[in-house]
Amino acid sequence: MDDDFLLDTEEAKILFHGYAEGMPIIDYHCHIDPREIYEDRSYDNIASLWLGGDHYKWRLMRQMGYPERLITGDAEPREKFRAWCETLSQAIGSPLYHWSHLELRRYFGCELPINAKNADAIYERCGEVLAGGSLSARKIIKSSGVKVIGTTDDPCDSLEYHRLLREDRSFDFCRVIPTFRPDQLLLIGSGSFPEYIGRLGKSEGREIRGLEDLKSVLARRMELFNAMGCRSSDQSAGIFPCTRIGEKRADEVLVKALAGREITEEERLGFMTEIMLFLGGEYARLGWVMQLHFGVVRNTNSRMFSLVGKDAGFDRIDSSAPVETLAAFLDELDRRGCLPKTVVYSLDPTMNTALAVLVRCFAGEGTKGLVQHGAAWWFNDNQSGIREHLRVLGEQGVLGTFIGMLTDSRCLLSYTRHEYFRRILCSFIGRLAADGEVYRDEEQLGEIVKNISYENAKSFFGL
Amino acid sequence: MDDDFLLDTEEAKILFHGYAEGMPIIDYHCHIDPREIYEDRSYDNIASLWLGGDHYKWRLMRQMGYPERLITGDAEPREKFRAWCETLSQAIGSPLYHWSHLELRRYFGCELPINAKNADAIYERCGEVLAGGSLSARKIIKSSGVKVIGTTDDPCDSLEYHRLLREDRSFDFCRVIPTFRPDQLLLIGSGSFPEYIGRLGKSEGREIRGLEDLKSVLARRMELFNAMGCRSSDQSAGIFPCTRIGEKRADEVLVKALAGREITEEERLGFMTEIMLFLGGEYARLGWVMQLHFGVVRNTNSRMFSLVGKDAGFDRIDSSAPVETLAAFLDELDRRGCLPKTVVYSLDPTMNTALAVLVRCFAGEGTKGLVQHGAAWWFNDNQSGIREHLRVLGEQGVLGTFIGMLTDSRCLLSYTRHEYFRRILCSFIGRLAADGEVYRDEEQLGEIVKNISYENAKSFFGL
Amino acid sequence: MDDDFLLDTEEAKILFHGYAEGMPIIDYHCHIDPREIYEDRSYDNIASLWLGGDHYKWRLMRQMGYPERLITGDAEPREKFRAWCETLSQAIGSPLYHWSHLELRRYFGCELPINAKNADAIYERCGEVLAGGSLSARKIIKSSGVKVIGTTDDPCDSLEYHRLLREDRSFDFCRVIPTFRPDQLLLIGSGSFPEYIGRLGKSEGREIRGLEDLKSVLARRMELFNAMGCRSSDQSAGIFPCTRIGEKRADEVLVKALAGREITEEERLGFMTEIMLFLGGEYARLGWVMQLHFGVVRNTNSRMFSLVGKDAGFDRIDSSAPVETLAAFLDELDRRGCLPKTVVYSLDPTMNTALAVLVRCFAGEGTKGLVQHGAAWWFNDNQSGIREHLRVLGEQGVLGTFIGMLTDSRCLLSYTRHEYFRRILCSFIGRLAADGEVYRDEEQLGEIVKNISYENAKSFFGL
Repeated sequence: MDDDFLLDTEEAKILFHGYAEGMPIIDYHCHIDPREIYEDRSYDNIASLWLGGDHYKWRLMRQMGYPERLITGDAEPREKFRAWCETLSQAIGSPLYHWSHLELRRYFGCELPINAKNADAIYERCGEVLAGGSLSARKIIKSSGVKVIGTTDDPCDSLEYHRLLREDRSFDFCRVIPTFRPDQLLLIGSGSFPEYIGRLGKSEGREIRGLEDLKSVLARRMELFNAMGCRSSDQSAGIFPCTRIGEKRADEVLVKALAGREITEEERLGFMTEIMLFLGGEYARLGWVMQLHFGVVRNTNSRMFSLVGKDAGFDRIDSSAPVETLAAFLDELDRRGCLPKTVVYSLDPTMNTALAVLVRCFAGEGTKGLVQHGAAWWFNDNQSGIREHLRVLGEQGVLGTFIGMLTDSRCLLSYTRHEYFRRILCSFIGRLAADGEVYRDEEQLGEIVKNISYENAKSFFGL
Repeated sequence: MDDDFLLDTEEAKILFHGYAEGMPIIDYHCHIDPREIYEDRSYDNIASLWLGGDHYKWRLMRQMGYPERLITGDAEPREKFRAWCETLSQAIGSPLYHWSHLELRRYFGCELPINAKNADAIYERCGEVLAGGSLSARKIIKSSGVKVIGTTDDPCDSLEYHRLLREDRSFDFCRVIPTFRPDQLLLIGSGSFPEYIGRLGKSEGREIRGLEDLKSVLARRMELFNAMGCRSSDQSAGIFPCTRIGEKRADEVLVKALAGREITEEERLGFMTEIMLFLGGEYARLGWVMQLHFGVVRNTNSRMFSLVGKDAGFDRIDSSAPVETLAAFLDELDRRGCLPKTVVYSLDPTMNTALAVLVRCFAGEGTKGLVQHGAAWWFNDNQSGIREHLRVLGEQGVLGTFIGMLTDSRCLLSYTRHEYFRRILCSFIGRLAADGEVYRDEEQLGEIVKNISYENAKSFFGL
Repeated sequence: MDDDFLLDTEEAKILFHGYAEGMPIIDYHCHIDPREIYEDRSYDNIASLWLGGDHYKWRLMRQMGYPERLITGDAEPREKFRAWCETLSQAIGSPLYHWSHLELRRYFGCELPINAKNADAIYERCGEVLAGGSLSARKIIKSSGVKVIGTTDDPCDSLEYHRLLREDRSFDFCRVIPTFRPDQLLLIGSGSFPEYIGRLGKSEGREIRGLEDLKSVLARRMELFNAMGCRSSDQSAGIFPCTRIGEKRADEVLVKALAGREITEEERLGFMTEIMLFLGGEYARLGWVMQLHFGVVRNTNSRMFSLVGKDAGFDRIDSSAPVETLAAFLDELDRRGCLPKTVVYSLDPTMNTALAVLVRCFAGEGTKGLVQHGAAWWFNDNQSGIREHLRVLGEQGVLGTFIGMLTDSRCLLSYTRHEYFRRILCSFIGRLAADGEVYRDEEQLGEIVKNISYENAKSFFGL
């Protein structure tokens, strides 16, 4: 994993070192807590930094047969770290293997292979670096060249830390902007829905009694988000709207649900349809990007869910692809003249080609790649997943319009995933050039690399 | 893209230059208008030749954000061409990138990379070649070594231009034969159905009042097609027949539909079942090949459909695979002893292995590969699509029985796709030999290459 | 196909020759008849050995257009063999090409390429070797280094030949153990069910009148299997249990079915659910491995089924993936605290990633890889299928915990498939090392190779 890691042709080396490597980072989609940045948090040890909240790593450790005590339990950090090192040494071919070694090298200057034998030495070395204070949240962001961070925020959120960060003159090297994530709005019919809507109303000092109130509150929240720099929404969409019941009935359904009365499946889908079309229109009006994530089944293991809760490594891929309804949703927005810039992400890799073809059915004058087939996500965020995604984008459209990578991470060390992506991107394009499949026009290819690494996201998100 | 483009081993070079390159072409499935050939059409400029009807290219241009005026609209040809050149330079990894450069080299002798900078020079150069008159329809066919062209024709068609071409002594280097495409027959229940059946009857000077009439007219049309050299049918099949209602009820349904009365979904499927089984039997009797295309959803973008119509770049992949009913359809024909030679093409690439396995469940004494898993089609007609298809054919059956490539194109310049396919084929087989995965028996491998390039199609279609 | 066949890097050669090659074989899942081993069967000619029962080969021969006489019919062995040799020479890219040549080299010392020209010479050479007597069942097992053979056995089976083999002092180099395959139990509602249950009862000298009887008989059969060394069950599961009807109703359904009365679909599924949950619990109690095979549609060609019967080469892939119900089944067993060690195998290769992700949602303290995504199976048991499987295992989990290969074969010569797998495994891992994607720690990688080749299966099955 030296300077030329993954750069398997001369062309790849030139493209990476000459064009990609130096570009700043726009991490337009992550789960960093803005407070962590505002307070410039620092960290105690590598175990809590790596294993404190990363369910990717927990999954691997469980597969090794380790007891939960060493994973999410109360074992000593050093003991957990040893288990992790032993695990990783067996996990060849895993993206975790690459990410972990890259993070160790880039942020800790430690080039030891991660395995049981080296566990203690790595733990000590990292401890020294952390104690040295060079790895606080802000320092990591600055040294990684991150220019924009898109957090993920509930519409109810006060965005206080976003405001504080905007007002902080010392934090002038990066913009931290919120992303509007209205997932809870779509949970109509669930027990928590009335309370959530109550909270949403309160965020604007109002009571939400019906659809008009709801829309008006949402519009005001979006104004606030916009004022705090928001350029995008994100929705985790199990299904896409396909049941038109009209505004009047949607209002009745909302009133019913707020009163705690049961609603039918048709009413639930009908309300979601109305809200998602409303939101889509608002995003278009504000010039925001609509991000849609789908293809996930959460909490597959009910025993472990009751023990360790959600986001703990028990999620899986939903293969019942909603391509049909996604197509209808995009078409309906387009028909109304309010299809926003959109990014679709599926967790199901078998949908790659079908999705890439679908999104090319929609376009907008003056926008490169109005509907994007988003970067390889979660279980697909690995070398072959990224290569496959690039291949399909190239085959089914204009690769040069792709907006590139994000981390989707809860951890600030994950910026190495941008480096990882760029190396794979340069390997992919370099290979085309080396094999005579594209003209070896360094300037042209270099521009494409820079665009995908940075410029396309900048202009797509309007940054 | 020189002589050894894509030929990545010594073995590949030997196979391509020694065996594949010189073989004639049987383009058994395309959408060329026979009139264009009869009248020996010539072309004004490269823009109208390339951009006049090619929705593959339009999709890419839209993705760049160009206004429709520059795509299907009334902009100047040269202006459109500039937009296309800029688009293509960003579309690395696209088959269009290869096809376009190959066409430019092979037919226009122009080796300039296609990009914004070179757009005008290319436009001029092509204009000169076109003005020189060496690129009329017949000249392209002759210089490309095309021996057979299978057009696509409605059963109502008079086949006048096919007849004229057969009678034209000066056109002796290629056979242009019709393909029987009864798609409209299957649209029972649609508004246009009675009119269509009326027209079909008139083509034989009869009125179709029921199922017996219909079958008898179809049989006569097939005789005419057969007399004009037809060796194949083609059906775009959204679904396969699976609802047996019997001849009597099918007759009643037809009578009802012809009277413009509404039919039920069961009646619609039942009629289709009856007709498709009848047609399959007729194809078997005539020794024709039954081509079945499926996995498409057309006109995904309704706004653009109303603006620019069908076949304009707004189609997508249908992932709801009809493998179950396809299996039952083939089985029923086989049970009746009238399973014709068949080629199945799916637009959904994830079905590759399942389809390749399915078709191997049917065989016919004396026919190599009675049911073929057809060449990579449309959105799959690219380098990885072709390689994947060859890989799956090899793994699941006898690669040496494959009938090879077609263009499926509306443009005569597309014969370079046969060259493209053959290069990939030789690269694929050459790699097996180079890696020691097959014996380096040049004669044996060369024979397989020649068979897949030409001989297998010749004997499969009975040409 | 020399010593370094498929070993495409120096690292691969070191890993294979230094670590994989010498490891013994645990063939934990096959369809060898134990009687064949007990009686130390020998063979007449290569045609009956290769073509007597191998539907993989029959499929290819049918695709060549050969008459059934030369495939499963009464043609002379030598004539059949010629047809097979001609077929195989056209089947480049097929795993059969590699398996056949490897078997010829390893067991017959014959290095001739298989083709029509060499057919007679190969036939003679093999005949001499067979006549020499060095290739009896036991000799093949011994010379192949097979330490454990897991056969496939019905719960009714007396396991007589397993007992005889255990008592045979001369057969001390390999353990032949039964596998509990209760498929017929799940056919409740079929005509043969009452007779089968009657037979099952008789195997324990009892009559089965209801659910309690059935469970008690099954428990006793499992004790016998366990005493004969059984470490695993195997189920061919079209669907997974998802209809809870409770013990009482399941008992009523069983009584009804035993009386030959019709049961509803809900009753059928409800009974299966109860039984599969019961079996899963028993497997867990005994420490057995639960193998689940799915994704198959059998006997696609009804005409040929009536001519040549089942297991004759007319099966195909079922793409209607039961991932949802499989997840619910595993979750229910886990919730009850009785999820056994499990291996899931799907015939549908598009499910690879979804399955690999699903199985990682379940884990057990102290067991490496409690739920395994089983080796590439049947139509996927080829080079790219194995590589894809390894890639996905590596990306989605800890590759080092994989239990490795099996033959699933009816023929003793198939042990070369273990060699084939190990070569691909070493090529896969060697490539990671050669490309700098894992540290070149020979000892560590060698250990992983040995574990996947042998040690993991040994400890997973408790051998």
